[in-house]
Amino acid sequence: MEIIFLGTSSAMPSNHRNHSAIALKAFGEIMLFDCGEGTQRQMSRVKVSPMKVDKIFLTHFHGDHLLGLPGIIQSMAFRGRKEPLHIFGPDGLSELVECIKKMGYFALSFEIHAHELKNGVVLEEDDYIVTCCNTEHSVPNLSYCITEKRAPKFLRERALACGVKPGPDFGKLQRGIPVKVGDVTVNPEQVLGKERKGLKIVYSGDTRPCDQMVEFAKDADLLIHESTFDNRNESKANETGHSTAAEAAEIAKKSGVQKLILTHISTRYKDASTLESEAISVFKNTVLADDFMIFEVKRNGRN
Amino acid sequence: MEIIFLGTSSAMPSNHRNHSAIALKAFGEIMLFDCGEGTQRQMSRVKVSPMKVDKIFLTHFHGDHLLGLPGIIQSMAFRGRKEPLHIFGPDGLSELVECIKKMGYFALSFEIHAHELKNGVVLEEDDYIVTCCNTEHSVPNLSYCITEKRAPKFLRERALACGVKPGPDFGKLQRGIPVKVGDVTVNPEQVLGKERKGLKIVYSGDTRPCDQMVEFAKDADLLIHESTFDNRNESKANETGHSTAAEAAEIAKKSGVQKLILTHISTRYKDASTLESEAISVFKNTVLADDFMIFEVKRNGRN
Repeated sequence: MEIIFLGTSSAMPSNHRNHSAIALKAFGEIMLFDCGEGTQRQMSRVKVSPMKVDKIFLTHFHGDHLLGLPGIIQSMAFRGRKEPLHIFGPDGLSELVECIKKMGYFALSFEIHAHELKNGVVLEEDDYIVTCCNTEHSVPNLSYCITEKRAPKFLRERALACGVKPGPDFGKLQRGIPVKVGDVTVNPEQVLGKERKGLKIVYSGDTRPCDQMVEFAKDADLLIHESTFDNRNESKANETGHSTAAEAAEIAKKSGVQKLILTHISTRYKDASTLESEAISVFKNTVLADDFMIFEVKRNGRN
Repeated sequence: MEIIFLGTSSAMPSNHRNHSAIALKAFGEIMLFDCGEGTQRQMSRVKVSPMKVDKIFLTHFHGDHLLGLPGIIQSMAFRGRKEPLHIFGPDGLSELVECIKKMGYFALSFEIHAHELKNGVVLEEDDYIVTCCNTEHSVPNLSYCITEKRAPKFLRERALACGVKPGPDFGKLQRGIPVKVGDVTVNPEQVLGKERKGLKIVYSGDTRPCDQMVEFAKDADLLIHESTFDNRNESKANETGHSTAAEAAEIAKKSGVQKLILTHISTRYKDASTLESEAISVFKNTVLADDFMIFEVKRNGRN
C-alpha cells in the first residue's frame, strides 16, 4: 500500500503546496481521496494516470477538496475513457456531478456513478472494505477508512496431517472451500489459523477533533489527519471547524494508531516544521506531509 | 503594458506548462484572458493577486480555458472581496457562471456580471478599448483585441503662442477642453497634434488560421496566437480546429504585426523550440511563450 500526497495545502494553495488530494495505490488499484484544483497536473508530475482511477472519495464540498474533479473528468473524456467512474461523497454529490457535466463543451465518453453516503460501509471488495464516518466541520464532512481484508494464515502442516496434498486443494482451503480426502471432508477451519488484522488507514478530511474520530481511527496503522493550524491559533481552528497539530496528535494518541501524518496546512506557515514539532510533543510517531511525499504503509513486523 | 503568461499548454497540462491563461497589466488594472485550471496558483507564483482582477475574458468554453474560474472566484470570496467581477465570453456564459456558483459550499461576497459577446466593441474605458472577433474553432471562439487610446501630442509652443499660460489651462487643453485667454477662446485642436496610434494587442484563443484574424490583428504591436501543432501535424490541426506554428506565423505576416508570440502548445512537444523555428522561418519576429514569461509591450521608438 502506497500513499502519494498530491496536495497538502488548506483553502489557498502556496508555491509548495497544492490543494488537497491523496492517491492510494493498493489492491491493484489507484484510488483518490479528495481532488482539489490542479490535481491532474500533480498526478502527471508523479506519473499517476487519471485513466487508472476508478474511485474518487470526496470528504466534503469545499472547493479546495473538489475543484480538480471537472478537469480530471474532462481529461479522462479527452483520452476516450470508457470505464465507469465512481465518485463517493456526502449528500448533494449527484447535484454536484450534474453541475460538473455542464462545465463547458466536452463529450463525456463514460458513465459517472455518484454515490451519496451515510455513516458506515461504503463498499466491500474482495481485498478491502471502505467505511466512512461523519465528523465535525463547518459543512458535512466524511472521514474515510480503508481496511485490508486479510486471509487467516494457512497451516500447511495441519493440512498435510489431514492428508491434503499440496496443489489445488491447498488453494481451495485457503479460499475457504472444503475439500475431500477420500471420503473424508476437510473443512477450512481445520487448517486455517485465527483471523489476522489487515492494514487500516484513516483519512480525516476537514474536521474539529472529535470522539467519533477517535473511535473510527482506533488501532489504525496510519491516520492522515488535517492540521490546518498550530496551537497558538486554536480559536481560529475552532471558529473554522479545523484542527491544530496538537489536536490531531491527541486524536492519534487516543486512537492508538501506529503513525500520524499531518496534512491540510495553512499557507500562513512558510516553515510548517513547527506543526510537526507541536504534534510530536504529543504523539511521537508523527510526520508532516509535503506535496509528492510517498509513504509506504507496512505491517512493521506485525503478524 | 506587461503581459504575463500564466499557462501555455493546450488541452493537457505538462510539468512545464499549465492550462491557458494570460494576465495583462496595463492602465492600472490586471485583466485575465482565459483561466485554465490552476491559474490561481500560477498567479500566486508571480505574485499577481486575483483580488486585483476585475475583468476576465474567456475566448471559448473548453475546460483548458475556463476550469480555473471556480477556484479564483471562491478564493476571492474566501478573502472577502466586495468589488464586482466582470466576466466576458461567448453565448452561454451566464449559464456557465450559474453552474460555477453551485460548485460546492461557499459564500459569494460580490457580484458577478456575465457579459455575453457578439463581434465588435466589448467595452470602452478612458484609456483603452476592447473588441472581439469570432474565429474558427470546433466551438465558438472569440479573439480579443486591446487598443490603447492615446491622446494627440500637446504642442506646447503653439499653446504659448496663443497666450495660454503653463499650468491648469495646459491640462484642460490636453484633455480636450477649450480655455479662455482674455476674451479669446483657445480650442484644443489649435494646440494638439494629429491622432496617435495607441498600442494594440491581439490574443487569438483557439482557432484555425482565418481571414478575419488577419483583418482583426492588422498592424498590431503584438499578436499572441495559438500554435498547438507543428506543420507535420497540419491535418491534426485542421481536424481539431487549431493552428500550426507556420500558420500562426502566416497570420502574423499578413497582418503586418510587430511581434508574434506562440502559445497553447501541445504536450507532445517536449522541446517546443521546433515550433518557434518553424514560425521564424515565416515571420522573423516570433517568440515561443513559456509559463511565467513576462513580455513588455513597447512602442519601439514609434511616435
